[in-house]
Amino acid sequence: LQMEGNRIDFYIGLSLAVSSSVFIGSSFILKKKGLLRLARKGSTRAGQGGYAYLKEWLWWAGLISMGAGEAANFAAYAFAPATLVTPLGALSVLVSAVLSSYFLNERLNVHGKIGCLLCILGSTVMVIHAPQEEEVASLSAMAEKLKDPGFLVFAVCVVGSSLVLIFAVAPRFGQKNVLVYILICSVIGSLSVSCVKGLGIGIKELVSGTAVLKDPLFWALLICLAICVTIQISYLNKALDIFNTSIVTPIYYVFFTTSVMACSAILFKEWLKMNVDGVVGTISGFLTIILGIFLLHAFKDITYSLDSLPLYLRKNENIGHIEPQPELL
Amino acid sequence: LQMEGNRIDFYIGLSLAVSSSVFIGSSFILKKKGLLRLARKGSTRAGQGGYAYLKEWLWWAGLISMGAGEAANFAAYAFAPATLVTPLGALSVLVSAVLSSYFLNERLNVHGKIGCLLCILGSTVMVIHAPQEEEVASLSAMAEKLKDPGFLVFAVCVVGSSLVLIFAVAPRFGQKNVLVYILICSVIGSLSVSCVKGLGIGIKELVSGTAVLKDPLFWALLICLAICVTIQISYLNKALDIFNTSIVTPIYYVFFTTSVMACSAILFKEWLKMNVDGVVGTISGFLTIILGIFLLHAFKDITYSLDSLPLYLRKNENIGHIEPQPELL
Repeated sequence: LQMEGNRIDFYIGLSLAVSSSVFIGSSFILKKKGLLRLARKGSTRAGQGGYAYLKEWLWWAGLISMGAGEAANFAAYAFAPATLVTPLGALSVLVSAVLSSYFLNERLNVHGKIGCLLCILGSTVMVIHAPQEEEVASLSAMAEKLKDPGFLVFAVCVVGSSLVLIFAVAPRFGQKNVLVYILICSVIGSLSVSCVKGLGIGIKELVSGTAVLKDPLFWALLICLAICVTIQISYLNKALDIFNTSIVTPIYYVFFTTSVMACSAILFKEWLKMNVDGVVGTISGFLTIILGIFLLHAFKDITYSLDSLPLYLRKNENIGHIEPQPELL
Repeated sequence: LQMEGNRIDFYIGLSLAVSSSVFIGSSFILKKKGLLRLARKGSTRAGQGGYAYLKEWLWWAGLISMGAGEAANFAAYAFAPATLVTPLGALSVLVSAVLSSYFLNERLNVHGKIGCLLCILGSTVMVIHAPQEEEVASLSAMAEKLKDPGFLVFAVCVVGSSLVLIFAVAPRFGQKNVLVYILICSVIGSLSVSCVKGLGIGIKELVSGTAVLKDPLFWALLICLAICVTIQISYLNKALDIFNTSIVTPIYYVFFTTSVMACSAILFKEWLKMNVDGVVGTISGFLTIILGIFLLHAFKDITYSLDSLPLYLRKNENIGHIEPQPELL
């Protein structure tokens, strides 16, 4: 019966994670469209410290869509393991790629289509292999996990490195190197996910009648989450404004997922319960997704010389190619 | 103990399948190099009915390497299920791609590298999910399977369609359409694999002391295999001579594997014993391999305009790109 309950929880978590990706994928497009409209109006851009985006309704629609997505994501963490929920964020990259081709007129070429397929295949493989058992069932169990020396060392490293990145590296290199802002978001993201996981379990306990609100850990997690998410949103906005969505999204995915999986492995030790097949399958799926995202984005604006392609691809109208120059013919 | 024996058999089959791919992958390169050398000498080409390749030692080295590979492959089928052994043939595509870049000066670009990685990831996922149990243990059990009405219908269809392809389609369209010769090889290949499977089991029985040589089925399978393999070698040679290795190899892989998996599913009904995860995983792995092979080959000779690539790829020296024309600068 316990096993049955875990299985149902797993599928609830899975559905929440997938629907969250749809919301978050759409939100990237809405936000980007809002920021583009602002740039056309000539306001001070977010990357240069402006806050004009707060007056743009499209940006707010994006924020609300992201809020709904994050809420679904939040709930998903309460039902399914982080090792499953976080990588499924790839589906949001896919949604955002497909929507970009409709609403931002960013054409999806054959590389993009293969990339989308690979994201789906990799996610499928990860879902099959994800551990189905819940690692922690109560807030007190979570408290035990948080006191583990391994996790404490990890948390100190995360906070220390984010402070260095924010105060020493970002002011100098943030505008030039795309990795800086994304690294801040990703590293802090691993803490957010841990807080979300704890809070989700707390809320589940609250619903079943435990006096969770008297537990200081619940409030500590909530405050920590608020701080982390504020920093993440702020730096993700900066990154999205300065650099192309097609660069920010995939790098953010890879860094954020890796960081959450590392954190989850240290905190919940869920990898220890998996068999060899499960570990190999999960890693293969994750690498497949990364390759898919790479294809989706690295060759987004590629132009080919048409005669270097096999005949069956030349007929494909959707492919980016170099038009023969009329004056040279 | 029975389970343990099956597990050991599985790993023996797996190692044989992998080493077979190395031999077969090398054989493509050796044969192609032989045929290229002949073309330079001006002999009548295999695609036009010539047999001069029989005098070229490189072609023979290729044939021997293919023979060793096929022997290992043959043995692999006796130990592991066809649903595992056949798809692992993808590794031969990978070996041939890597060797091509060294010995045929066919440069492996970033697409090719991603394709190789995807072949490895897809194969890994398939290996994890392949059914580990042996479907048939004796030649008499095999005889039962072969009498199954489903398989008889399949076999009649295969023979009928190959005869149509060989006598009606090939003379007209074989030289123009790459699919014709490959389709002949692939469809007949599914019968070869069934014969190989039966013979392998027979030889295993022979070693353990059963009087297999008195069974007419053993000899029937041997004759059938000889006929099938002769036709396959002849048409694969024709295809390789007329069309580019980079077109023939991937199409052959996809068609041959699909055809063998269909045949194996009808003959051994191994899919019925797999759980949903296993089926989904196997299909995901197979599709990942197909995408990998597609990337390896479709973009093999692609030339890009360099400024359409992201900066981190422009620095990569291995990428195919359009050189700026000196006279236009």
